[in-house]
Amino acid sequence: MALQRIEADYIIETANNPHKAAEVMAGEQSSGTFAKVPGETPELKARAAARVESVEVISEADLPSLPGAAGYDSAPIKRARVTLSWPIDNIGPSLPNLVATVAGNLFELRDFSGLRLLDMRLPEAFASAYPGPRFGVAGTRELTGVTQGPLIGSIVKPSVGFSPEETADLVQTLCEADIDFIKDDELQADGPTCPFNDRVRAVMATINRHADRTGKKVMFAFNLTGDLDQMRRRHDVVVEHGGTCVMASLNSVGLVGMIELGRHNALPIHAHRNGWGYLTRHPMLGWSYVAWQKLWRLAGADHMHVNGLQSKFSENDDSVIASAKTCLTPMFDAKSCIAMPVFSSAQTALQAPATYAGLGSADLMVAAGGGIMAHPDGPAAGVSSLRRAYEASIAGISLEEAARDHPALARSLMGQAA
Amino acid sequence: MALQRIEADYIIETANNPHKAAEVMAGEQSSGTFAKVPGETPELKARAAARVESVEVISEADLPSLPGAAGYDSAPIKRARVTLSWPIDNIGPSLPNLVATVAGNLFELRDFSGLRLLDMRLPEAFASAYPGPRFGVAGTRELTGVTQGPLIGSIVKPSVGFSPEETADLVQTLCEADIDFIKDDELQADGPTCPFNDRVRAVMATINRHADRTGKKVMFAFNLTGDLDQMRRRHDVVVEHGGTCVMASLNSVGLVGMIELGRHNALPIHAHRNGWGYLTRHPMLGWSYVAWQKLWRLAGADHMHVNGLQSKFSENDDSVIASAKTCLTPMFDAKSCIAMPVFSSAQTALQAPATYAGLGSADLMVAAGGGIMAHPDGPAAGVSSLRRAYEASIAGISLEEAARDHPALARSLMGQAA
Repeated sequence: MALQRIEADYIIETANNPHKAAEVMAGEQSSGTFAKVPGETPELKARAAARVESVEVISEADLPSLPGAAGYDSAPIKRARVTLSWPIDNIGPSLPNLVATVAGNLFELRDFSGLRLLDMRLPEAFASAYPGPRFGVAGTRELTGVTQGPLIGSIVKPSVGFSPEETADLVQTLCEADIDFIKDDELQADGPTCPFNDRVRAVMATINRHADRTGKKVMFAFNLTGDLDQMRRRHDVVVEHGGTCVMASLNSVGLVGMIELGRHNALPIHAHRNGWGYLTRHPMLGWSYVAWQKLWRLAGADHMHVNGLQSKFSENDDSVIASAKTCLTPMFDAKSCIAMPVFSSAQTALQAPATYAGLGSADLMVAAGGGIMAHPDGPAAGVSSLRRAYEASIAGISLEEAARDHPALARSLMGQAA
Repeated sequence: MALQRIEADYIIETANNPHKAAEVMAGEQSSGTFAKVPGETPELKARAAARVESVEVISEADLPSLPGAAGYDSAPIKRARVTLSWPIDNIGPSLPNLVATVAGNLFELRDFSGLRLLDMRLPEAFASAYPGPRFGVAGTRELTGVTQGPLIGSIVKPSVGFSPEETADLVQTLCEADIDFIKDDELQADGPTCPFNDRVRAVMATINRHADRTGKKVMFAFNLTGDLDQMRRRHDVVVEHGGTCVMASLNSVGLVGMIELGRHNALPIHAHRNGWGYLTRHPMLGWSYVAWQKLWRLAGADHMHVNGLQSKFSENDDSVIASAKTCLTPMFDAKSCIAMPVFSSAQTALQAPATYAGLGSADLMVAAGGGIMAHPDGPAAGVSSLRRAYEASIAGISLEEAARDHPALARSLMGQAA
């Protein structure tokens, strides 16, 4: 039977009775408050109250993870997994109000020294109310002509500072290197040094020329992050010049802006998660990616960043793989909302076997900056070694074996080992 | 001289050389990356690179605050205050791109076991690009007729579950209690149980009747949080029925949605910060309120929530007062962007002296739910005791003295002490 209530899973840390603590959460996030209020009748509670669906104590902690909790003098600190549910009629199928309900005034409560949203499950009404990704994996493959295997991509580096012409020169180099995909850096949007429209014009002239010559249209994700009217205009400029992708920073734009962009857009949306660290880096606070990414997929994100294995960031590899797998997991019966996971940060051929094995799918994008541009034999060798590494991984061949008849991959492995 | 660069202050925690760590931050957030890239010429760096303005080591730490940092085997862990700056030409005066620049891919870097944004200073170009609060303190006082002293307000409780008529009944009670301001709960927006338009109609009929009779128009902040078209329509419905305030949840709507609402709105925007805990509760991660609230004031927030003293939340009183003071601190020479701080959560007469003394101003709102509705002599006594408590605090009279000729305040103090 289809889900009729909103459900959310949390990990909590508390010195109180975990069942009572879960009731505090449910009260705070529905009809209750810190004092008994006269209007909270049994009928109203039946209509609107959040319900504690389950509480499972999983461990004890020696010290509180977060400061500011109360009642922690002597009682042991326990960690528990809690599931709450809410009637959908409290808010209707509204993503912004969902956020206030499952992730509102909870994280500051003094009853807890840790509280993190792990996952959520939504009634099908959300699938009807929001578009979801318009392109996803299939649409992205169609636009790029990459019918199977990962999309091999790169990032404009230096992140910021290039003029439009310098950017187009780099794009020319990457096109010649047989790249599938290129993205702006998230720091590059529409500053006076590199105005958005001029960049689109210069870059698309290069990409269109390359497409005319070779039949291959490289996908470039132009970072249109900005105010709403700016994003819409920039989107239309990309369409006008024959571009095939736009990029936006989720934490900069926010949910309502992304929903609006999702409704306006005629191109895949490459969703960048910069700032994600402040939402997730403490393991007992904030959001898990599994819960968080559902918001953006429903809003219309086609490509979702997930870090990369062995990256420059603090996230461990298991977490990266879990994030990527969740993007490929259907959300609703009627609307799967599949988004393509994007592996980035310090990516080279070396991470291909574990990335493919972990994900169990080749529906992924790799965005490698230094891994391509800094290949000792040049960018074409960088692209080729990455592509060959993934082909080998998919075929179950080791990188060493695959490198035997592929000098670029061999140099790549040597370079990385050195 | 006016500021020509964007500046941001951080507290960092690292086992590396703090000066080198600051350079990593500056590189990651401007022209650099983990590998040397060929295009990062001296000219480009001069044009676009972030600059380390200062590094001040302030303490050592025994253990890393956050997991996932690298190079922590033997070196001592240091905490330092760091200031970075960026040329405004990297992004232009764009709030969304400001967020990606000062709070982007920093928090996940393995060089750090703690990183928190403390404050930021912006060139005047931002004041020209964004509206700021249209009403602020003066406009709110004009609309409510409260020419001096705090606005005494309340919250609809139960938070969610009331029908429009039940909400209007509570509003009637609060109007009769001589309240200045009432707000929806952040969990109440436009669910089938209490549709927004019906609620506005019922509540404004009550408020308008009361205004006709008494000349006092109570300000009600209707929570219009939703998708953009929904928020615009709801705003217009409030205007149409003679309402004087709308409310939105900042973390649900996000920056672009709030900017858009700020441009559309003809009423004060009551900005709710639910979810703030996940951005701030760990002291070595995320955002300080001092930095964060600048975004929303520029976008147009007129009232900003700051918690309350001795509240049900984990935040300590010094932090609450610092948050409130910063809302009343001018942002630019040409545009002060002053927003009215809103003290809420478990507020009663008892917190008045410390709140007024801490803030040093009566330009504030109090939103008390139980503190008014649960007063032993009823809501009118609740409102009156809160108002008297603030009047006394402003006049430098103790609550005990003020209570001598004010039975409602006396009962309030007794009730709280019991």
